[in-house]
Amino acid sequence: MELKEKAFKSVSRKNHPGDTAVDIGGGVKIGGGSFTVIAGPCSVESEEQIIGIAESVKKSGAHALRGGAFKPRSSPYAFQGLRALGMEYLLEAKRATGLPIVTEIMNIAHLGLFADVDVIQVGARNMQNFELLKELGRTDKPILLKRGLANTVQELLMSAEYIMSEGNSRVILCERGIRTFENVTRNTLDLSCIPIIKEASHLPVIVDPSHATGIARFVAPMSYASVAAGADGLIIEVHNDPENALCDGDQSILPSEFGVITDKIKKMTELFNKKYDAAE
Amino acid sequence: MELKEKAFKSVSRKNHPGDTAVDIGGGVKIGGGSFTVIAGPCSVESEEQIIGIAESVKKSGAHALRGGAFKPRSSPYAFQGLRALGMEYLLEAKRATGLPIVTEIMNIAHLGLFADVDVIQVGARNMQNFELLKELGRTDKPILLKRGLANTVQELLMSAEYIMSEGNSRVILCERGIRTFENVTRNTLDLSCIPIIKEASHLPVIVDPSHATGIARFVAPMSYASVAAGADGLIIEVHNDPENALCDGDQSILPSEFGVITDKIKKMTELFNKKYDAAE
Amino acid sequence: MELKEKAFKSVSRKNHPGDTAVDIGGGVKIGGGSFTVIAGPCSVESEEQIIGIAESVKKSGAHALRGGAFKPRSSPYAFQGLRALGMEYLLEAKRATGLPIVTEIMNIAHLGLFADVDVIQVGARNMQNFELLKELGRTDKPILLKRGLANTVQELLMSAEYIMSEGNSRVILCERGIRTFENVTRNTLDLSCIPIIKEASHLPVIVDPSHATGIARFVAPMSYASVAAGADGLIIEVHNDPENALCDGDQSILPSEFGVITDKIKKMTELFNKKYDAAE
Amino acid sequence: MELKEKAFKSVSRKNHPGDTAVDIGGGVKIGGGSFTVIAGPCSVESEEQIIGIAESVKKSGAHALRGGAFKPRSSPYAFQGLRALGMEYLLEAKRATGLPIVTEIMNIAHLGLFADVDVIQVGARNMQNFELLKELGRTDKPILLKRGLANTVQELLMSAEYIMSEGNSRVILCERGIRTFENVTRNTLDLSCIPIIKEASHLPVIVDPSHATGIARFVAPMSYASVAAGADGLIIEVHNDPENALCDGDQSILPSEFGVITDKIKKMTELFNKKYDAAE
Repeated sequence: MELKEKAFKSVSRKNHPGDTAVDIGGGVKIGGGSFTVIAGPCSVESEEQIIGIAESVKKSGAHALRGGAFKPRSSPYAFQGLRALGMEYLLEAKRATGLPIVTEIMNIAHLGLFADVDVIQVGARNMQNFELLKELGRTDKPILLKRGLANTVQELLMSAEYIMSEGNSRVILCERGIRTFENVTRNTLDLSCIPIIKEASHLPVIVDPSHATGIARFVAPMSYASVAAGADGLIIEVHNDPENALCDGDQSILPSEFGVITDKIKKMTELFNKKYDAAE
Repeated sequence: MELKEKAFKSVSRKNHPGDTAVDIGGGVKIGGGSFTVIAGPCSVESEEQIIGIAESVKKSGAHALRGGAFKPRSSPYAFQGLRALGMEYLLEAKRATGLPIVTEIMNIAHLGLFADVDVIQVGARNMQNFELLKELGRTDKPILLKRGLANTVQELLMSAEYIMSEGNSRVILCERGIRTFENVTRNTLDLSCIPIIKEASHLPVIVDPSHATGIARFVAPMSYASVAAGADGLIIEVHNDPENALCDGDQSILPSEFGVITDKIKKMTELFNKKYDAAE
Repeated sequence: MELKEKAFKSVSRKNHPGDTAVDIGGGVKIGGGSFTVIAGPCSVESEEQIIGIAESVKKSGAHALRGGAFKPRSSPYAFQGLRALGMEYLLEAKRATGLPIVTEIMNIAHLGLFADVDVIQVGARNMQNFELLKELGRTDKPILLKRGLANTVQELLMSAEYIMSEGNSRVILCERGIRTFENVTRNTLDLSCIPIIKEASHLPVIVDPSHATGIARFVAPMSYASVAAGADGLIIEVHNDPENALCDGDQSILPSEFGVITDKIKKMTELFNKKYDAAE
Repeated sequence: MELKEKAFKSVSRKNHPGDTAVDIGGGVKIGGGSFTVIAGPCSVESEEQIIGIAESVKKSGAHALRGGAFKPRSSPYAFQGLRALGMEYLLEAKRATGLPIVTEIMNIAHLGLFADVDVIQVGARNMQNFELLKELGRTDKPILLKRGLANTVQELLMSAEYIMSEGNSRVILCERGIRTFENVTRNTLDLSCIPIIKEASHLPVIVDPSHATGIARFVAPMSYASVAAGADGLIIEVHNDPENALCDGDQSILPSEFGVITDKIKKMTELFNKKYDAAE
């Protein structure tokens, strides 16, 4: 099967020669020859936690900070994030470090809280929440669109098309593993999608090896494989105390482990014609 | 693997002896020993179309009318439904036939338009749109919750738990096929989920053989199989002119074919201890 | 996607009007309007065990006896079956009850041991062991060809074509569940494949609800669903002492439970235009 | 889910400190710190073809030659390989170039023809052909065991255990893509399996990016990603005239493209602590 490229308009490489670079603030770009690493905890847990992690990952080469304030959880009885308070702490971390921040939106009614957020993330479960996509298409914010667990590359690109068709062309795609019969890993990382997307679209693509594998000690090799497959960046879960993390501790690495990964990636990017600049 | 039943509270059969019957109006119940058939087109296309189909399917034994006003489509350039106008036509069809109506919500901001809708459907793509689920949990409307394409039974029940945890216990579950490697059918209908859900939960479960197979001529056998597997009902796409349907024509059956199916189901329900009453 | 019917020759309904009935001996046919039930343990464990179960399932309406002598197991350290000795016991059970016997071949070198076997089973793991299929195509034995865990209907029919292309047209297909992300059941039973196969091919199709679900208490509803979906028969694991079975105890039902299932199936077959005759 | 490591004996890293290196002849090792590339056509088509390709890939850095004589094909009417004649041509190519040869066995009865073959391949469809595995376990040949389309890593390691339990410890594992819902690629390459296998087992693991993607132009990025993920080698389909190849032309690259890939891999191996030695 081939991609049905006729279905693509704004996302198509045919209509947009060259690679799109999305400027996410703080002198950081995703795409267009840069290699960009977003790091941070699954959830914002406290002001100290998020500022501490932000400082650590910045030192180790992260270009942007991730952290969840609104958390999609399978169970209504699980920790749902600090919500508005989490947003405040995240903005504190931005002020403290200068790192652009990336955080997930779950309800368009919360959009007001995202005014100072640099990149709005659409989670895998909302990849086909078309009403949300259309509303985000009417903003001018960079949108990090994660591939759904059971969504094809074709559908991922069509969801990007939903955002772009409303006028917002600042879309960053993210592969984060798909659901298959293999359950030794949380999901199956589909790295083949990177060259496929690159061929069909001008949009940048990053990889989330933390959610894809669900296992901290496999984040490093899958990060390296992502660089080699042609990704424009990574989004990695880093926590100062994974064993006591309020969510996703199993897949979170320590700041020191993160530094080992970025060191190797810096060497790899030379080989793969990408620039790994530190955040300004 | 077993279901993790400890995660269930409100949905659990342990906390609720007996089967829940959800009264959807017009004298129609789903669950609790009834067998209930919802029928109608994928999309409301015009007032004449929806009233005509409503009358046909009522004659052929349907208990409720389905019809999409807001349509989730992979492409932003595909027909998105008549939206508010479609809701009006659907309500006309309800007035004309007395059939309770079932239609999908895609955005909680539209809730006001659903005041006279009898059953609000949450589509497969929104099964883990937790913010939507929580808002619907604060209404007193029956909610038809469709299983996501890549969601486990465990997750389906946890999403029902989201609705119930907010106070609304009128939840109807719906199996509509999952994504697998087999693509001769649109999806793979997972009928084993019915006895599994029945064992773990008191909530009613219906089956959508139209979306599961995607092929009109396989709707009949999969409808019969659903009855035999223990389903509480069916939701079937019926169109007066499938070849010219604005969406999902391939999987829509004619009203005459629908009548053949309900005739056979009536005979089956005796064998499977279900009541097939006509809508009042 | 449609089946690529041009690839089919011998299996195609186009080249063979009417349904094929495979005579498996003892007055028992599979296909052509009959509904046929094969029952027995996963493994032959002793002469007493297999004869005892054979007598029980015969009383409860089974038409043929299954029992594994050569057992495909994921681990080389798991019980591999009684092998040649198991074959002897199985033949004893045949002599004692008159039931035709069905057992799996794993190695064409064992073919000599199958001289008095009525139906040779090709297991799911060998569905594309083309060398085995070709050799079996040169025999005149009925072949029960099980669908592989990750094989499409297209491939199942092509594997049947391998057997038939060598001259043996006595092929019975068997759906036994496919691998998907859902692991509450051992596999996902794909009942939609039945009407699809029936449309494309004249060959009979039976269902194995025991391996599909892996859970004894779901065998009954999936058996009924199979009848309703249009299957020509069932192959069910029955054991006199499931808790102490040497393999697959979790999915084996007791002879008494088997009798409840066949009683209900007898009533269903009238509705679905099938004949349920007792074995002679 | 974790691997059930208790099930492993011979394959387990716990029982075998250090990495196994399998010597395949001609001075070539797989595993133990080497990075090894096997290249060649899907099928041996003629003496000229296989010798020509062998010479080309040797020049471009291949350590061993692949080529199918016995071909597993879904259809009995498709080209089945030159069989015994193909074996002769392959041995000619070995004599002409000194490259060790890798070719697939489909029937243990053919074992006599494999006396001068350096590595016997077990194809994906035969990964759980346990009788074949046991027989190969009684030889002293290196065995290249490909992961089945729907087989878990657990099962792959258990199949290796089948071979080793009979005494042959010269097993090389191969990831070649699994079946998922995504069909833009032929299969979904599961690179996460590499660090998982490396953690649990001492056996070498190589990757087949040609069968995994099914698309020639994605072979390069997936080859690089395999190196980065920690693979011990690659097996790549190379054909002098892909458009006229008798099988798998879509996924075959030209010798010139192969040279570009090996050049880049040589640079990568330094970074990933592997040795890329030319064949002697």
